[in-house]
Amino acid sequence: MTRYQHLADLLTQRIRQGLYQQGERLPSVRSLSQEHGVSISTVQQAYSLLEERRLVLPQPRSGYFVAPQKAEPPAPRLTRPEQRPVEISQWNETLALLEARKDKAVFPFGGGSPDISHPTLKPLWREIGRVASPQRVEAMFGYDELAGNRELREQIARLMLDGGAQVNSEEIIVTPGCHGALSLAVSALCQPGDIVAMESPSYYGTMQMLRGLGLKVIEIPTDSQTGISVEALELALEQWPIKAVLLVPTCNNPLGFTMPLARKRAVLNLAARFDIALIEDDIYGETAWQYPRPATIKSMDEEGRVLLCSSFSKTVAPGLRVGWIAPGRYYDRVLHRKYIATTSSPPATQTAVATFIREGHYHRHLRRIRQHYQRNYDVLSCKVRSLFPCGICVSRPQGGFMMWVELPEEIDLTRYTAQMQQRRLHLAAGHLFSASEKYRNCLRLNFAAPFDEKCENALRNIGEFFHEVMRKG
Amino acid sequence: MTRYQHLADLLTQRIRQGLYQQGERLPSVRSLSQEHGVSISTVQQAYSLLEERRLVLPQPRSGYFVAPQKAEPPAPRLTRPEQRPVEISQWNETLALLEARKDKAVFPFGGGSPDISHPTLKPLWREIGRVASPQRVEAMFGYDELAGNRELREQIARLMLDGGAQVNSEEIIVTPGCHGALSLAVSALCQPGDIVAMESPSYYGTMQMLRGLGLKVIEIPTDSQTGISVEALELALEQWPIKAVLLVPTCNNPLGFTMPLARKRAVLNLAARFDIALIEDDIYGETAWQYPRPATIKSMDEEGRVLLCSSFSKTVAPGLRVGWIAPGRYYDRVLHRKYIATTSSPPATQTAVATFIREGHYHRHLRRIRQHYQRNYDVLSCKVRSLFPCGICVSRPQGGFMMWVELPEEIDLTRYTAQMQQRRLHLAAGHLFSASEKYRNCLRLNFAAPFDEKCENALRNIGEFFHEVMRKG
Repeated sequence: MTRYQHLADLLTQRIRQGLYQQGERLPSVRSLSQEHGVSISTVQQAYSLLEERRLVLPQPRSGYFVAPQKAEPPAPRLTRPEQRPVEISQWNETLALLEARKDKAVFPFGGGSPDISHPTLKPLWREIGRVASPQRVEAMFGYDELAGNRELREQIARLMLDGGAQVNSEEIIVTPGCHGALSLAVSALCQPGDIVAMESPSYYGTMQMLRGLGLKVIEIPTDSQTGISVEALELALEQWPIKAVLLVPTCNNPLGFTMPLARKRAVLNLAARFDIALIEDDIYGETAWQYPRPATIKSMDEEGRVLLCSSFSKTVAPGLRVGWIAPGRYYDRVLHRKYIATTSSPPATQTAVATFIREGHYHRHLRRIRQHYQRNYDVLSCKVRSLFPCGICVSRPQGGFMMWVELPEEIDLTRYTAQMQQRRLHLAAGHLFSASEKYRNCLRLNFAAPFDEKCENALRNIGEFFHEVMRKG
Repeated sequence: MTRYQHLADLLTQRIRQGLYQQGERLPSVRSLSQEHGVSISTVQQAYSLLEERRLVLPQPRSGYFVAPQKAEPPAPRLTRPEQRPVEISQWNETLALLEARKDKAVFPFGGGSPDISHPTLKPLWREIGRVASPQRVEAMFGYDELAGNRELREQIARLMLDGGAQVNSEEIIVTPGCHGALSLAVSALCQPGDIVAMESPSYYGTMQMLRGLGLKVIEIPTDSQTGISVEALELALEQWPIKAVLLVPTCNNPLGFTMPLARKRAVLNLAARFDIALIEDDIYGETAWQYPRPATIKSMDEEGRVLLCSSFSKTVAPGLRVGWIAPGRYYDRVLHRKYIATTSSPPATQTAVATFIREGHYHRHLRRIRQHYQRNYDVLSCKVRSLFPCGICVSRPQGGFMMWVELPEEIDLTRYTAQMQQRRLHLAAGHLFSASEKYRNCLRLNFAAPFDEKCENALRNIGEFFHEVMRKG
């Protein structure tokens, strides 16, 4: 990162923390130059960047001021999903979204990929290049232990300490991605017809998996900044025979919130009171923009009730298909389900990832992407404000690379699926994130890739389409 | 392969085909030397090898004779399993067998690994070393198409022609190994409580998977040389509401037979008559010792009723975890199940395997292992005869690297599990291959590795243990 970007990030942080209030005059170029020991032109570049992000306003001959916050659209409100178990449909639309990956000409705003072009990943690519050396063939391409490569499990146990959970390597099972981990967790806990409680909105992939396993979902009202409503969850638990609660409590997908610790604890207490399992999807947890990363619910779990699921798909690369589950007291059942679904995992990738972590490259990479995604958010949220119709709400993620946008209520995106496909506008439509097809005026945008011309054009096309739809009424 | 090995193989083949009858005098050393243009000592070495394999007997001053066939133990008879659906148990024993993989000091007679040390695999290792080159990172470590890498699917479609099946790449789904393919097939077709018909004995891994999915198995009497009894299968289909038939009809595991084509057709006709699906596990099909490889049941399937499952685990290396399914008319359901279980597969390994096949290395490797395993069988079956108690039966595999041994009936291996574990005797006990715990006097031996001193010692220990058990009564 260059000096001016660093300075801009620092100032952004201070503005966000309220150190400089809106309308307040910011330090002069000269004083910042002295304070940080950088050149005048570096400070000017930093201020230009902040101007671009619409965080500051230049006033001729008097310097820079914090831009009025009304420029920032409000965050979405508490959601109001159906308060009863619902069967999930929409498999064909999900499939269409997956199929769209093939078309490399389309900008993948609707996809789930992180940016895997970072130079901080180079040590991993090098390691993968080495797995097939002659002396290692037997270990790398024979059958692996059912639970997964021992060394990788040890490294994962160390990573889990960052989220406050003390789990040893014997309590971890390596899985094909986080999706594979969730699938094992759910099938170990539930029978067809059972009910699972989830946040609303929830990631469509997990909902499709639940549907495929014959389960019903009850969607719980969720605040876009603090997460699932504990009160609403409690009511649902009293009213329905819910088998498990499945949450993405840290850097939620799609809303981006991280539940405050007290809320996490409250949810765990509820699970204990109703004696049910809690599946914690932590796939985005390590992409949290704050450091150290927020604690997991697993870290507070003394009864082995929490099944923590995660993977390297969002932090490193999805094509590795390396995930894990720490299933607590359900270990034996989950291990059995792993045998049923896939037996053991490929040892080579696991070993390469273990080395990548052990040698410190993984944490270096995390530091890098934390800043990267945060910067991308600043830019994209500005652009969304300027290119989309008025009256939108935009989520305030605390990690990850997903933005949830609520359009004016009169726009029902389910009516335009074919048109958007035809124009090759790739976005994840909001109703996919709800079993009861709510959120028809919402969408999720991926901001993993740096904002370049291609990205800007794609966003402009989406914005223009929405304007058109609004004009036609 | 050296010249003398080549010559020995040729003579073995001729003896097996009955060109030289038992007790008949074989061509002289001099005439073979002239016929094949090799040195006298090469022919002598070839004959020594055949002597070692107990196929020929030297007669002083008159040359070599075909050894009397009574030296060869009989093949096992038609099996007589329980003729009713049974719930499978034995998960803990299966787990113990998997756990034993960790102990590298134990010779893995009970395991399922092929020999992955062949130099014909070098081009694959080289290719894997290349997947992480900078220009390929996006393609190799991003999300893959749900059905699997397009190029690999094209190569698999070409391979399937070897078994006579014309399937195009759009009809193939890449899976995590053959086990993953079978798991998708079964879960796409069956509900908990359903009944599946299988050969008896059947691979314990598949039975454990069926158990985990809540299914019952009806085991059908099976001939050790021609496969499942069509008559018994027909009776079972008339009597029970069987949902699917699951067979390993080519190079069966554990018996090694390949069903004659007419029988394969008869089974397919039965499936059609009862309008049920037929799951064809072809994982060992390409290891057939005959060339060209036997036709698959899939090759005769005009209704899309057959779900062919296979992988590169037995032909190339199990740690790749690359398998596939050609699910016929059940394509959509199976693709959906794949999404539920794991979503997409890792692109990098798939691409490396595709290149390995496309460049001709795969077929070169198959030629090599065909001879290798056949030779290993000759040696191991000799050694088993000499080291095990009298009165045993030994299977006559037509491919693969598994040997089924029937011990005298008074030996019940289920009584000695702990003792064998203590002595670190690693073998797959027969009762694991039956839901009704038949075959307690049987075992399966893996002969993938060349017969060396370590292997001989391990076999001797097993043989001595059996002798001991017999003595104690």
